[in-house]
Amino acid sequence: MATDAFYMKKALEEARRAYEEDEIPVGAVVVCGDRILARAHNLTETLTDVTAHAEMQVITAAANALGGKYLNECTLYVTLEPCVMCAGAIGWAQVKRLVYGATDEKRGYRMFAPQAIHPRTEVVSGVMADESMALLKDFFKGKR
Amino acid sequence: MATDAFYMKKALEEARRAYEEDEIPVGAVVVCGDRILARAHNLTETLTDVTAHAEMQVITAAANALGGKYLNECTLYVTLEPCVMCAGAIGWAQVKRLVYGATDEKRGYRMFAPQAIHPRTEVVSGVMADESMALLKDFFKGKR
Repeated sequence: MATDAFYMKKALEEARRAYEEDEIPVGAVVVCGDRILARAHNLTETLTDVTAHAEMQVITAAANALGGKYLNECTLYVTLEPCVMCAGAIGWAQVKRLVYGATDEKRGYRMFAPQAIHPRTEVVSGVMADESMALLKDFFKGKR
Repeated sequence: MATDAFYMKKALEEARRAYEEDEIPVGAVVVCGDRILARAHNLTETLTDVTAHAEMQVITAAANALGGKYLNECTLYVTLEPCVMCAGAIGWAQVKRLVYGATDEKRGYRMFAPQAIHPRTEVVSGVMADESMALLKDFFKGKR
């Protein structure tokens, strides 16, 4: 059985892809059983679409792969704490487990809408947070 | 200059389309100047996707029509108070004005995440709320 760190590494690979495409480097994967159903990274600039966060896309892709709207048997891994929009989507999708990396002090849902997540969703934070934060800091340093 | 009620009627037409497609009847339009940039209705069942709310789609479509991510010169009309996910998206898009119809006591953002909307966004509620609520009640009555 693979660990949370194993899947978070896959999410970090997606974040690195975003970085290479000059997108804010956030990546996500959805895992059901021991299978990765979907992978995605932030594409807001490429798609000119504020809704194209990694989590939104990975939820859509995973539901498509499953043929059902609900991810209540799945774990969503994302390298950064979800924003309010993405937390709302994770709530609607009834994700079974949410595992995220770095904390987002400015935009994270826990500050603004802690109830957005479904009450039955198990939340794990801080998995490979240092790697995620290093990538984000590196990205924004290059922007200054 | 058309009134808010004029554009809300267009959003209600979209909600009726959703109803006819057996979707929860919520519709939205984005208006910039006096031009309707985009129209959309809820498609969560058709697309098997919890993220396919009217607001999410209309934001994506309007940004596509504009060629820019931000709707800071636009008004978003939606027949029902946005949920947390959609309010988050409306916040990211920096929508200039949000006009909604009926209040959503159970899922509306004002209860769970009032700060999700951008602080500069002007919010108007209750426009053609009775018509919107009548359509929703009729839909759910048919489901029982």
